[in-house]
Amino acid sequence: MTTMVNAYAAPSATEGLVPTQIERRELGPHDILIDIKFSGICHSDIHTVRGEWGPPTFPLVPGHEIAGIVAEIGSAVSKHKIGDRVGVGCLVNSCMECENCLAGDQQFCEQSVGTYGSTDRDGTMTQGGYATHVVVTENFALKIPEGINLDVAAPLLCAGITTFSPLKHWGAGPGKKVAVVGLGGLGHMAVKIASAMGAEVTVLSQSLKKKDDGLKLGASDYRATSDESTFKDLHKHYDLIINTVSASINISDYLGLLRVNGTMVNVGAPAEPLPVNAFALIGGRRSFAGSQIGGIEETQEMLDFCAEHGLGAEIEVISADQINDAYERVLKSDVRYRFVIDTATLA
Amino acid sequence: MTTMVNAYAAPSATEGLVPTQIERRELGPHDILIDIKFSGICHSDIHTVRGEWGPPTFPLVPGHEIAGIVAEIGSAVSKHKIGDRVGVGCLVNSCMECENCLAGDQQFCEQSVGTYGSTDRDGTMTQGGYATHVVVTENFALKIPEGINLDVAAPLLCAGITTFSPLKHWGAGPGKKVAVVGLGGLGHMAVKIASAMGAEVTVLSQSLKKKDDGLKLGASDYRATSDESTFKDLHKHYDLIINTVSASINISDYLGLLRVNGTMVNVGAPAEPLPVNAFALIGGRRSFAGSQIGGIEETQEMLDFCAEHGLGAEIEVISADQINDAYERVLKSDVRYRFVIDTATLA
Repeated sequence: MTTMVNAYAAPSATEGLVPTQIERRELGPHDILIDIKFSGICHSDIHTVRGEWGPPTFPLVPGHEIAGIVAEIGSAVSKHKIGDRVGVGCLVNSCMECENCLAGDQQFCEQSVGTYGSTDRDGTMTQGGYATHVVVTENFALKIPEGINLDVAAPLLCAGITTFSPLKHWGAGPGKKVAVVGLGGLGHMAVKIASAMGAEVTVLSQSLKKKDDGLKLGASDYRATSDESTFKDLHKHYDLIINTVSASINISDYLGLLRVNGTMVNVGAPAEPLPVNAFALIGGRRSFAGSQIGGIEETQEMLDFCAEHGLGAEIEVISADQINDAYERVLKSDVRYRFVIDTATLA
Repeated sequence: MTTMVNAYAAPSATEGLVPTQIERRELGPHDILIDIKFSGICHSDIHTVRGEWGPPTFPLVPGHEIAGIVAEIGSAVSKHKIGDRVGVGCLVNSCMECENCLAGDQQFCEQSVGTYGSTDRDGTMTQGGYATHVVVTENFALKIPEGINLDVAAPLLCAGITTFSPLKHWGAGPGKKVAVVGLGGLGHMAVKIASAMGAEVTVLSQSLKKKDDGLKLGASDYRATSDESTFKDLHKHYDLIINTVSASINISDYLGLLRVNGTMVNVGAPAEPLPVNAFALIGGRRSFAGSQIGGIEETQEMLDFCAEHGLGAEIEVISADQINDAYERVLKSDVRYRFVIDTATLA
């Protein structure tokens, strides 16, 4: 039997989100029903509902930073039990058979299913976390360790793994110099995680407005990219640059900040191609790379790492009727550093 | 006492090369005098003498693919003896103290000295291999193993190491699929070396004109990039792409040919920035990278590898008075696959 649950949905690309009810599927043998407690607002929610990444199917319930409690389990579920603290990120399914799935890189599975706005394996359209409940297959629910509150855990399911994965892949750690471009939802998690990994972290931001925050979050240096001397002073300085800014920035300038063998990794992407000066790559065996969320096992590893190091997101908890205002504030970068919806306000 | 030797020099950016005499320095304790036998013509010689990479100092003797015999040695030389077969590539000096030199990456030393058109550590301007003799410090002369003729060895000093280095760095070998973009001087060496390393090699060329050659050189597949189906058929196929083409190509199309974690490496570079679609990077944790020649120890390793596998360049030997014609033919890609000057014709 399907369940009707309260949610907030975008009726179209041009209207604000409104309260609604959506259907959640009957539990299959490997499904769990999650009582959602908190749901983060990611910038990509806004891109998606506004049709900036292609035409979505409406009504659309966004949300892929979900934290809650297991309320029911299917007959064959073995990984979770009722009462467990769990999270759901950007993926709710994949084929689990291809070489990417087998390598733990479900995010690159050609048949992966996004948490909202995707066609699920049963043919239905997925709906996200701005809702009181969600049903997912047990493999795509992560355990949220004791020691991280559910509210600050929710953003880890996207902002946390999106930054943890490239930091780990490209070897951030003791002795490594890491720069984080942009101090927003992703950037502030990159600073916390890279610093906890033992790297020496610099924030590169347009201005010095958030400098105090950056240093508190774990950075040892904070530079304004509007100041030309930044690019001279820090020439050939970093092993790794994590670029969390989706706007077009001058990639070649940033490549000049990398040491020999250094890598700049984009975790966001503007729609237009970015001009890259090949000489900047060749002159130091440098790489310009991209990274996209992370795999399921790696997301669990990230949650465990965050619990061990006492890391959660810096958040502002809002009620569901504040979602549309929150979207406007996200677009103005007026949030420190993630909005999280208290889904009790949906009831 | 300095020595005057016969050479071919560009008098200006707009005139053809002409016979001349240049001075070679007196042997210092660690210098060796090389009796040059063969000198390759690299496309970058043309860029340089024509001022396309900045204004050179004239007259300029190009040539950084040098193979010859040790004719004299300085009082403290320990690495080479008279009669040894030796080569000189793109570098004739570096500081030998910085972290790049200590890591064997002399090509990234801030004080490295190019074989021609560079200011040497004694303040003089370096002059290249289109000459009967050259004096270099012993550390920057490589041993050419018995088993490679000097004529086919000369191009290894630039075209060989420029392709060997990224193939090795990014792990070309058994089980790996490598595509080589462009079948010219660099490309044909990339095919030979990648194939000898055990990788499965595809040539991606504008047309199928050189297909027979590509397969003979070691490729198992050869595709025309002018054929749109190439980019569909080979979607997500390669672990590594070596781009030897300096002209602007659509990098994002080629990134689509890479598997998850794949890398495309430019060894040439157009003057204009290359537009890169960040989504193509993010969607497969792909990298767009650059590589520049290789270090001195690695160049020796490449020569030893080529000797072991019986590899040399495919060449057309010319006399010095054919240099200007050869330049025109290089610009028309009318060479299979490297011009090598027989320096006996300079005498």
